[in-house]
Amino acid sequence: MKEKTVAIIATCDTKGNEANYLRERVRSYGMQGLIVDCGILKDPTVVPDISKHEVAAAAGHTIESLIARGSRGAAVDGMIEGVGAMVSKLYSENRIDALIAIGGAEGALLARAAMDALPLFMPKLTLSPVASGSHKFDEIIGYNDAMAMHTVVDILGINSISKRLFDNAVGAIVGMLNAKLAPETEKVVRIGITAAGTVTPPLVKIVLPMLEKKGYEVYSFHSNGVGGPCMDNLVNGGYFQGVIEYSLSELVGNLYGGLHKSRPDRMEAAIEAGVPLVAVPGVTSVVVLSTADAQAPAYEGRKKYYHNREITLVSLTEEECLAVANSFVDKINRAKPGKATVLLPLNGFSSQDKEGCALENVPGRNAILNVIRERLAPHIRMIEFPYHINDDEFALATANELLRMTQTDK
Amino acid sequence: MKEKTVAIIATCDTKGNEANYLRERVRSYGMQGLIVDCGILKDPTVVPDISKHEVAAAAGHTIESLIARGSRGAAVDGMIEGVGAMVSKLYSENRIDALIAIGGAEGALLARAAMDALPLFMPKLTLSPVASGSHKFDEIIGYNDAMAMHTVVDILGINSISKRLFDNAVGAIVGMLNAKLAPETEKVVRIGITAAGTVTPPLVKIVLPMLEKKGYEVYSFHSNGVGGPCMDNLVNGGYFQGVIEYSLSELVGNLYGGLHKSRPDRMEAAIEAGVPLVAVPGVTSVVVLSTADAQAPAYEGRKKYYHNREITLVSLTEEECLAVANSFVDKINRAKPGKATVLLPLNGFSSQDKEGCALENVPGRNAILNVIRERLAPHIRMIEFPYHINDDEFALATANELLRMTQTDK
Repeated sequence: MKEKTVAIIATCDTKGNEANYLRERVRSYGMQGLIVDCGILKDPTVVPDISKHEVAAAAGHTIESLIARGSRGAAVDGMIEGVGAMVSKLYSENRIDALIAIGGAEGALLARAAMDALPLFMPKLTLSPVASGSHKFDEIIGYNDAMAMHTVVDILGINSISKRLFDNAVGAIVGMLNAKLAPETEKVVRIGITAAGTVTPPLVKIVLPMLEKKGYEVYSFHSNGVGGPCMDNLVNGGYFQGVIEYSLSELVGNLYGGLHKSRPDRMEAAIEAGVPLVAVPGVTSVVVLSTADAQAPAYEGRKKYYHNREITLVSLTEEECLAVANSFVDKINRAKPGKATVLLPLNGFSSQDKEGCALENVPGRNAILNVIRERLAPHIRMIEFPYHINDDEFALATANELLRMTQTDK
Repeated sequence: MKEKTVAIIATCDTKGNEANYLRERVRSYGMQGLIVDCGILKDPTVVPDISKHEVAAAAGHTIESLIARGSRGAAVDGMIEGVGAMVSKLYSENRIDALIAIGGAEGALLARAAMDALPLFMPKLTLSPVASGSHKFDEIIGYNDAMAMHTVVDILGINSISKRLFDNAVGAIVGMLNAKLAPETEKVVRIGITAAGTVTPPLVKIVLPMLEKKGYEVYSFHSNGVGGPCMDNLVNGGYFQGVIEYSLSELVGNLYGGLHKSRPDRMEAAIEAGVPLVAVPGVTSVVVLSTADAQAPAYEGRKKYYHNREITLVSLTEEECLAVANSFVDKINRAKPGKATVLLPLNGFSSQDKEGCALENVPGRNAILNVIRERLAPHIRMIEFPYHINDDEFALATANELLRMTQTDK
């Protein structure tokens, strides 16, 4: 069996000794440690296995060009691209089996990019003092099963406390590499669904039970900016045999901000991979904002729905809806023939976008419908329903369409 | 050797099957899994090792009394107290060696309380979908070396994805329990110091080098609400032979809020444990606020210092300074004779609280000085210096006092 290799991500100008310690500990288990230097300014205090020049070059930069950018943030941004590209490369060349990263505020961003470049289930752990308090998880954790350990003390040299933390961290990584895996279940069909609170009831009542009755494993992802890219990553990893986009609020977020702003490539994974996709323009006639942001002058005079203390939904204008629909069509038109269906619930796209409800948005909805009717590529199936998105009949049609596509697809 | 035991924290009414799966996986390594049920409403779907009734009772509650509180949040609050107390008890009775927790939004809070009840270095890991996006780390991570894993999918049953995540998590815990530890370094003297940006220069220039020259390991903790309690926990764990409180902004935060609000027992660990303590009223004449909060009407007309986009310092009133000083004296007066010294830099308590600077606060400072002069217990050494807190001479005196106390203490 090939010796396992653990990538060690650190800025080796300031944390070279720590990286070296981690490499020694990994070696003590008969594994290899591969130090990837993400420092920029100074020379590394340890001999890395991958130099900072190679890291920068992985994203088409040189260390000199990054320094010439003139600001620390801009230089680090380049290195973040570099480490993501380098870890992708190391993984695709089968050169690493796990990853451990250390760092403070900037180191955490580098660590995040490195961990995010790895597939689900490959062990990945970042040690940082940032993993605490009011820091947000997305400073370290991206769109997969990454782990973080709070170091309690700053990472400043090898001392009696940091040593023990590093020993534990390496133990965890080695433990995951050696983990006993439960026997594989027989080949399952997995379906991913994007959802948001406002369109969840028909999924729970109709779609999930119908698919589960067929023996499918169904995974729902909250379209909150993180859930969608997580699903997309799993699609890229080959985990899903079918996808339902029931909430596309992240496409709105990518254009108009708010709480559901997401990765720019949202929804594209299934399209690129040719995974059967049923897409519904759910939650596309509103933008999901923080309740505080919803009070901004820009939203004066718009329809609003106070969801809770944190979240307020605000109606989109006709023009904004046009842009959302165009972004949707631009993406889905790249689907392979027979691999995408668009279902249109003519009576409303979210619980409050409905006749007599707080966010009823007939002009916006019509704008979206018209763009789709006019621009959707002819090789993509499109069906209109005289229902609201939360009507049982519409949910039933959605589930049936997915079943049809995935059964054909077998 | 005694069989190792891993506590498994879960709400077994909704996640009993998952807890059971984790217990089986732990057993597959020849270890014991101990399920602690934190559910409230429904019956557990697995037979736990510690029932929800025992968990509630650990904090003096009954499940019935928690339900009778009438709100979900209030009931969960009681269970959070219960699980913290129960895990403390299990640890102190030497019944657990590690902990793994699973949960969503509420489960994360229960997990945090459970992990926070364990000492440094004992393996502790929470699996949650909450560990991502704009969720804050303190929803899961408290004041020690806790770990979090993002589950990507919601924790809803045992399926082909959750199984593999759980296998990895158990592997990580087992790996940490079996971790090879670097040989203990010879007995070291460790010193903890609280600091904040505004008083850091003299620490870096004078105090750290002086202590390190004596062979001490020096750990600084940012008094940002998290750092102080982390240091206190390490004091409780017996890791520190001396403590310098150079920034007490967390005492201000505990009275007046802002970014440095902290645990109520801040600074008490060293006092209770009789660890030599040198305390300086650093950063006590200002409150550290978010730049947005600093614009509130309540702070109109006060002196302000814009630290950066996120942080603004605001002068405290004389009355507020009085309260801060009283809170300080109330705590330090409980110190054992010879175990605490208060050093007073008469010319200012933070970089901008200085003659001619933006936050100069003579009335506030005098209020603090007078309370300390009048109320400090006679068994506590107090020395006044005609210096500013950031003057070399004052830093030198601080380091020398700590050296004196720790050398006497040997």
